[in-house]
Amino acid sequence: MLIAKVIGTTISTIKDEKLTGRKLLIVRQTDETGTPYGKPYVAVDTLDAGVGDLVLTAHGSGGRQTTITRNSPVDAVIMAVIDHLELAGEVVYRKE
Amino acid sequence: MLIAKVIGTTISTIKDEKLTGRKLLIVRQTDETGTPYGKPYVAVDTLDAGVGDLVLTAHGSGGRQTTITRNSPVDAVIMAVIDHLELAGEVVYRKE
Amino acid sequence: MLIAKVIGTTISTIKDEKLTGRKLLIVRQTDETGTPYGKPYVAVDTLDAGVGDLVLTAHGSGGRQTTITRNSPVDAVIMAVIDHLELAGEVVYRKE
Amino acid sequence: MLIAKVIGTTISTIKDEKLTGRKLLIVRQTDETGTPYGKPYVAVDTLDAGVGDLVLTAHGSGGRQTTITRNSPVDAVIMAVIDHLELAGEVVYRKE
Amino acid sequence: MLIAKVIGTTISTIKDEKLTGRKLLIVRQTDETGTPYGKPYVAVDTLDAGVGDLVLTAHGSGGRQTTITRNSPVDAVIMAVIDHLELAGEVVYRKE
Repeated sequence: MLIAKVIGTTISTIKDEKLTGRKLLIVRQTDETGTPYGKPYVAVDTLDAGVGDLVLTAHGSGGRQTTITRNSPVDAVIMAVIDHLELAGEVVYRKE
Repeated sequence: MLIAKVIGTTISTIKDEKLTGRKLLIVRQTDETGTPYGKPYVAVDTLDAGVGDLVLTAHGSGGRQTTITRNSPVDAVIMAVIDHLELAGEVVYRKE
Repeated sequence: MLIAKVIGTTISTIKDEKLTGRKLLIVRQTDETGTPYGKPYVAVDTLDAGVGDLVLTAHGSGGRQTTITRNSPVDAVIMAVIDHLELAGEVVYRKE
Repeated sequence: MLIAKVIGTTISTIKDEKLTGRKLLIVRQTDETGTPYGKPYVAVDTLDAGVGDLVLTAHGSGGRQTTITRNSPVDAVIMAVIDHLELAGEVVYRKE
Repeated sequence: MLIAKVIGTTISTIKDEKLTGRKLLIVRQTDETGTPYGKPYVAVDTLDAGVGDLVLTAHGSGGRQTTITRNSPVDAVIMAVIDHLELAGEVVYRKE
């Protein structure tokens, strides 16, 4: 899984029918302290995450192992909202 | 999923039989505002997307979770045409 | 899928039994005009492609969705030989 | 598989129900001598690994071939804790 | 598949039970002439390959399409030992 920060959302009228009602969020991978870097990708939100949240995303077929994404043409899902990140016992990120 | 811009098409006479009649578009990944960067890849079009459209592509086995691509030797599909991209509530891309 | 140019071949006596009789070609990814760049990879040929041909390769489990590669320990297949590449209606590559 | 060093842990209250009770560790890929480099990723721990351990991680659907991760929305698992790394017969890493 | 050179081995006491008796080799990707570059990864050996051999590795679910790796938490397998590499008809690598 990757640690990522939610930065936005995508809106589509024309899409695969299995995506109807799905929220597709734009996220960006972060480092181990929650600082974003690199290019964005899009993940299905199954947990009502919001802009600014730090999340974990599962990729590939792992992204379809939820009741919301099963059998859909997607390859990434938000499967956890992060409360803390700890490095060697020290909390380096805490959800506000 | 990746945000990508459609830039062209590929034409092949010699191909796997399951690709007969399929439209294989050349796309390039974009950043979160729709600006392309990096190298191109090819995705099956299931939504009648056109050159210049911003789309979402699903990869790997996710690319075969549509009625058009199921059981075909492909690894990427266009599963949404993007209307808007919003970052923190601000629209940064709008389909013309 | 990736656009790639065939540059060579690999010969192996010791291999998984399901690879007996399979042609394993060395290819290199190209840009959208057919110009190679980057490092090589190896794909199963199912279409009698030759050195110099521009092809499309499907990766991951998509590489095993052909009668030749099904259930084999492979992760990439040549599933189309490219005739033309068109960018915004202009032909930028044509097979000789 | 990748060689990786365990550097921390993630804590999440809001997560997919199949992740309840799972330990999600932050790791960083290492080179062949066990020296970390690059950006972190997160893997499910099935072996009670600890911070500082060198481990092997399996990715993609391979990350779900354990009794703990099967059918969960995850894409990486720790499936071995490394005792030694040997290069050409010389031990370059030994677990303390 | 990737062309890779075997450079070492990993030893683990604590591991998933399905890995008992499996040889996990450290390899490094090479270019099309067999010259290594880049960072190492680990692949299951099914062919009794040795340090110094040039091999092909299959990744992802393709790495589990052998009798030795089926249903194991692994994502890469050595499925061929390379005898020759030929570029445009010229042999650029020959196994000693």
